[in-house]
Amino acid sequence: MKLLLIGFGVVGQGFAEILRDKAAELQQKHNFVAEIIGVVTASTGTLYRSNGLDIPALLEAAQGGSFALYPDQPGLRRGMTAGDMITAGDADVLVEVSPTDLETAQPALDYCHQALDAGLHLVLANKGPVALDYANLQAKARDKGLQMRYEATVMAGTPTMHLAEDALAGCAIRSARGILNGTTNYILTQMETGMSYDEALAQAQELGYAETDPAGDVEGWDAAGKVLILAKALFGGGLRLTDLDVSGITAISATDIAAAKAAGQRYKLIASATPAGGSVKATRLPLDDPLASIGGSTNAITLETDLLGDITLIGAGAGKLETGYALLSDLLAIQRRTSAT
Amino acid sequence: MKLLLIGFGVVGQGFAEILRDKAAELQQKHNFVAEIIGVVTASTGTLYRSNGLDIPALLEAAQGGSFALYPDQPGLRRGMTAGDMITAGDADVLVEVSPTDLETAQPALDYCHQALDAGLHLVLANKGPVALDYANLQAKARDKGLQMRYEATVMAGTPTMHLAEDALAGCAIRSARGILNGTTNYILTQMETGMSYDEALAQAQELGYAETDPAGDVEGWDAAGKVLILAKALFGGGLRLTDLDVSGITAISATDIAAAKAAGQRYKLIASATPAGGSVKATRLPLDDPLASIGGSTNAITLETDLLGDITLIGAGAGKLETGYALLSDLLAIQRRTSAT
Repeated sequence: MKLLLIGFGVVGQGFAEILRDKAAELQQKHNFVAEIIGVVTASTGTLYRSNGLDIPALLEAAQGGSFALYPDQPGLRRGMTAGDMITAGDADVLVEVSPTDLETAQPALDYCHQALDAGLHLVLANKGPVALDYANLQAKARDKGLQMRYEATVMAGTPTMHLAEDALAGCAIRSARGILNGTTNYILTQMETGMSYDEALAQAQELGYAETDPAGDVEGWDAAGKVLILAKALFGGGLRLTDLDVSGITAISATDIAAAKAAGQRYKLIASATPAGGSVKATRLPLDDPLASIGGSTNAITLETDLLGDITLIGAGAGKLETGYALLSDLLAIQRRTSAT
Repeated sequence: MKLLLIGFGVVGQGFAEILRDKAAELQQKHNFVAEIIGVVTASTGTLYRSNGLDIPALLEAAQGGSFALYPDQPGLRRGMTAGDMITAGDADVLVEVSPTDLETAQPALDYCHQALDAGLHLVLANKGPVALDYANLQAKARDKGLQMRYEATVMAGTPTMHLAEDALAGCAIRSARGILNGTTNYILTQMETGMSYDEALAQAQELGYAETDPAGDVEGWDAAGKVLILAKALFGGGLRLTDLDVSGITAISATDIAAAKAAGQRYKLIASATPAGGSVKATRLPLDDPLASIGGSTNAITLETDLLGDITLIGAGAGKLETGYALLSDLLAIQRRTSAT
């Protein structure tokens, strides 16, 4: 399987490390052999080699800050555009791991359409194209007998999408509700120990959980992007970000947390999607709700089904290898679905 | 897909109800069409019709207690043996839903081997053949390009096996630990409210959670069968029931429960499997362990992985439709894996 990567930040590098470290195991257990043949980045350069790039050298160059550090090799091409790589006819899958833009999804969205037009499967960690143009991308993929997969966009490698699409395929899913942002859950968990919101946020920033500008997390927009993806994947329809009822945790005070605790409840930032719409809201949960017990930066989701009742999945919601694994799991699923065992 | 059912008790009937009620949805969403062409029971009779039995009539006859109540139809054969049905050449899948025997796994085990020899895929709710002869059955299935699937044997339709085999395929799973028996979890949950063991057991029996002879549940053997299956599916090896360290909840007193509670802990009957072996033991868990929050008859499992850390799945562990769904999910997986999309 020959891969083009758009973006090579933490997630792309985590994925490359997994391919490097698990190559023998993946070949032996799953007859899975993948090569990265092209990488496009905004700031580090671009590399292309139809016979496969050397992954250790690629990681070293990226960590050095420039693909100029990647050694010359027969067949190596530098400076190719994403479009030229997509249409060159060598790749099987476009792996989109560039940063999410929930307003335009560009330039990733154009690359995704070009890739499907050129006969490539799509695997995304970038939430933008899935959140904003799910229906068109999915229809185009289906028409061409290709797959679009996006496990990494919700709960990193914790297999939410595999669960919903494959394992629960024969069920009707009626709703999804979960804790889909680890930063805010970490802050709320710390506030339960008596910290103020500002203290907890500062600690989350120190630990690298929260960005210097934490608005995307604490105002609920990161979770909202995931709600859009879940709503479209589970229920279809043309929901937009502006249709969602989104608020974050910025208005939750230490007093609110204490009042909930006194009532035997706990505040969680609950993201939910139903066929009628979606929301992201700080919500008081009774302690016997499985979502109430989720502490720190862990994520969780409860899917309400017709035949199985509630199914809850708990796991990491972020992380280099955790998200890199999501991409691998999608590639394995593509292999399973395109080749009968 | 033409199905033979061995056994037609609660689970088999739940499965038939799902096929009856979801036929149109399954055909439309998954291009999945299944017919029950043969049913073998110990006490209700046997029915066979290569063009498919009428499911509503089959359910009505079963509920009336005898397949003699099933109306005559062109091509209908009564009284055929399981062996004759398997070798008749019409069926695609043997669905084994007869009661579990963890000592011999018979007669189900013989039927499973005959079915694989005859080119049929295997789907089991019966734990016996999987727990006792996993390696031979799996090797035979692989040699013949067939599949053996057994989602129903652990946590009913809650997709434990789909999670481990497909969604986590690229991870190494290092251990599994869970609450795999709903009856004992119900009893322990009730004891936390102040009931004695005997009172809680009596209530579980009244509600139909526990059998009149509750030994299989409360002494840990039901969970132990599931540990064997998990150990073999996840780690391979030739573990036997007698290799496991099994104790139940019969020695747990109200005083023990109160002492755990006072220490901020909770007793759970924890089933665990590692490459080195397995056990079923009443265990005190800290309240921040996701398994500690599992109340009533719910089941849960935590898989420890190399790339994703801990993944926990929570859901129903029993039930007519919940277990019937497991069989459907296995059939959908067989279809996915035998036909490229």
